[in-house]
Amino acid sequence: MTIEVVGFDGDDTLWHNETIFTMTQSRFEALLEPYVDPRHLHERMLATERENVAIFGYGIKGFTLSMVETAIEVTEGRVTSEEIMTLLEFGKEMLRHPTELLDGAREAVESTAREHRVVLVTKGDLFDQESKLARSGLGELFDDVEIVSEKDEARYRRLLEDLDVAPEQFVMVGNSMRSDVAPVVGIGGHAVHVPYHVTWALEEIDDADVPQRGWRRIDHLAELPSVLRSLAG
Amino acid sequence: MTIEVVGFDGDDTLWHNETIFTMTQSRFEALLEPYVDPRHLHERMLATERENVAIFGYGIKGFTLSMVETAIEVTEGRVTSEEIMTLLEFGKEMLRHPTELLDGAREAVESTAREHRVVLVTKGDLFDQESKLARSGLGELFDDVEIVSEKDEARYRRLLEDLDVAPEQFVMVGNSMRSDVAPVVGIGGHAVHVPYHVTWALEEIDDADVPQRGWRRIDHLAELPSVLRSLAG
Repeated sequence: MTIEVVGFDGDDTLWHNETIFTMTQSRFEALLEPYVDPRHLHERMLATERENVAIFGYGIKGFTLSMVETAIEVTEGRVTSEEIMTLLEFGKEMLRHPTELLDGAREAVESTAREHRVVLVTKGDLFDQESKLARSGLGELFDDVEIVSEKDEARYRRLLEDLDVAPEQFVMVGNSMRSDVAPVVGIGGHAVHVPYHVTWALEEIDDADVPQRGWRRIDHLAELPSVLRSLAG
Repeated sequence: MTIEVVGFDGDDTLWHNETIFTMTQSRFEALLEPYVDPRHLHERMLATERENVAIFGYGIKGFTLSMVETAIEVTEGRVTSEEIMTLLEFGKEMLRHPTELLDGAREAVESTAREHRVVLVTKGDLFDQESKLARSGLGELFDDVEIVSEKDEARYRRLLEDLDVAPEQFVMVGNSMRSDVAPVVGIGGHAVHVPYHVTWALEEIDDADVPQRGWRRIDHLAELPSVLRSLAG
C-alpha cells in the first residue's frame, strides 16, 4: 500500500494546548475560591462549555465567554466586575501565549515531509489556529493547511476529496481518539494515535467507540517514521 | 478575456450582517444609558474593537468580549453582573440569528454558476461563517468555500493559486472596498463593488486607497450578470 498524504493534528499533537486551558482553569478556580468550591466550579464550567460548544464552536474566545457566564451563575451575580475583567485578561493571555512545540514535533513533520505530502488538519478558531501555526515556525513545512470547525467522518471525506487522495492512502496523526482516529478509520483511512497527558472532557470517547483496527498507538512522535514505513510496507 | 472564477463575499453581500451588529450596538447603548452617553459608549466600543481585533480577529465572539470589556471600563466597574449576563445573551442571539439573504442573492449566485466556477470567499469566525452558510441555503451552489481570517493581497494570491486561476480570470463581488475590491485589483484581478447601506468603521478605507480602475460598482446584485458579460466581452 502507498501512503500518499499524512495529516497532522496541531493542538496537543504538535504543540501544547490543553495545558494552557488547564492552567487557566486553575487560575479561574483560585479567583473564585472565595465564592465557590473549586470542584463545583469545575463541574459547572464543564456544563456551560458543553452547552455553549454548539453555538460558540471550539476555541479560546468561547472558553472565555463560558468562564464569564459560569462565574456570574455560580456566584449568583456576586462576582465583581473587576474579577470579570480578570477573566477577560486570562482569555487574552491564552491568545497571546507562545506556541510551545512538543518534543520531536518539528523532526516528525520534517522527516514525514521527505516521503509524503504533509497536511495540517486542525480544529478550532480560524484566527487563533492561524496565529498559532505562524508562531510555531512549522508553517512552511506543510503542503496544505486545513482548519476545520469539526473533525467528523463527513469533514474528513470532504478533505480527502479536496486533497484528491483515497482514504487508504491517508494517515492521520493526532492525540484525540475522538477527532483524529475514530472518524478517519471510520471512512477507511489509517490513524496513528499519540496520546497527550491531558484530554479535554469534551474530547473523551466511550470505549465502545474506539475502532478495533486500522490504527496504531505510539508514545512519542519519534516513533512515527517507523510506523509509517510499516504501514507502507 | 475569459472569466473563470467568480468569488462572492458573504456578509453584507449575500446576507445581512452589519445590521445585526448595528442592532446589538443600539441595544448595548440603551442598556448602559443609565451610566453613559450613547455617543461616548459608541466611541469607546470602537476603540476597544480596534485594539482587540489584532488578538480576537473578526466575528461575534470577539465583539461580545469587547462589549463586556467596554461596559466594565466605561462604567468604572459599576455595571452589574446581571447587565453583563445580558451582554452575553446579546452575543448568543446574534450567533443564533437567522441568515437573511439580501434581495437577489440566490438568483445572482445561480445565474453566475451557470457560466463560471463560483466560490464563497468570506472573512471571520470559521464556526460562525459555516453555520451562516448552512442556514443561508446557498451552500450547494458554490464549487468552493474559503473562509479566511483576513482579506489582503497575500491571502487572495494564495487563494487564486489554490483555485489554479490567474488573477485576470478572477472577479470578486463584494460590499467592502477594503476587503473585496482593493486587494483583488491590487494583484491584477477584477472586482465588482455592491455597496451595503452600512459599513463597519474598521472596514472603511481612505479615498486615496480606492483603486483607479479594474473594478465596477453596481447598486444591486441583479446587475451582476450584465457586468460579468461586459468583463468577458
